[in-house]
Amino acid sequence: MSDHLVAGLEPPYFTVVFTSLMREDPSGYGETAARMQELVEQVPGFLGYESARTPGGIGITVGYFRDEEAIAAWRRNLEHQDAQRRGRADWYERYSVHVGRVERSYGFDRG
Amino acid sequence: MSDHLVAGLEPPYFTVVFTSLMREDPSGYGETAARMQELVEQVPGFLGYESARTPGGIGITVGYFRDEEAIAAWRRNLEHQDAQRRGRADWYERYSVHVGRVERSYGFDRG
Repeated sequence: MSDHLVAGLEPPYFTVVFTSLMREDPSGYGETAARMQELVEQVPGFLGYESARTPGGIGITVGYFRDEEAIAAWRRNLEHQDAQRRGRADWYERYSVHVGRVERSYGFDRG
Repeated sequence: MSDHLVAGLEPPYFTVVFTSLMREDPSGYGETAARMQELVEQVPGFLGYESARTPGGIGITVGYFRDEEAIAAWRRNLEHQDAQRRGRADWYERYSVHVGRVERSYGFDRG
């Protein structure tokens, strides 16, 4: 899990919103999630991610990518494809993925 | 907090990703958040939202809107503007908002 916000992104860029409900006993999930974080950071054009999960509830992860090619490169990664299959077989009740092109963003920092 | 995933959205639509770190004692936040949920559901073109917060960590809320006009209507809402001011004054350490146009989405449901 990330515990910081991604800052300083300049549009245009893409958000990949992944929202999920997990099954009750997602064994093996933690190791795979850590490995996916390691791998995605090697993708050219990956800009960062943020992740939150309400205990017993919804999880939301947002990945930030410079362009469609960066997203496609991540989707082509074979270890990632394998983790997705495992997610459907074992870990998730349900999930949704929404790929959006960001033309504007803003923020606030108490500083 | 929502505890279900928004399903059945047909592109094109928009995601408004709001990621935040809260201050330690966000008094008054819960009531206002509940009121904002009530209000946003009255906005024509609002399609739903999902929200997750890691205890002690990041919160992420994703709002789904049919078009830019729906987002603009929500931004024009005076009670919403007032809540945003209160958020900056009292509740948030930091937040970011990313508005994205979704051209594709997909999902999985164990069913």
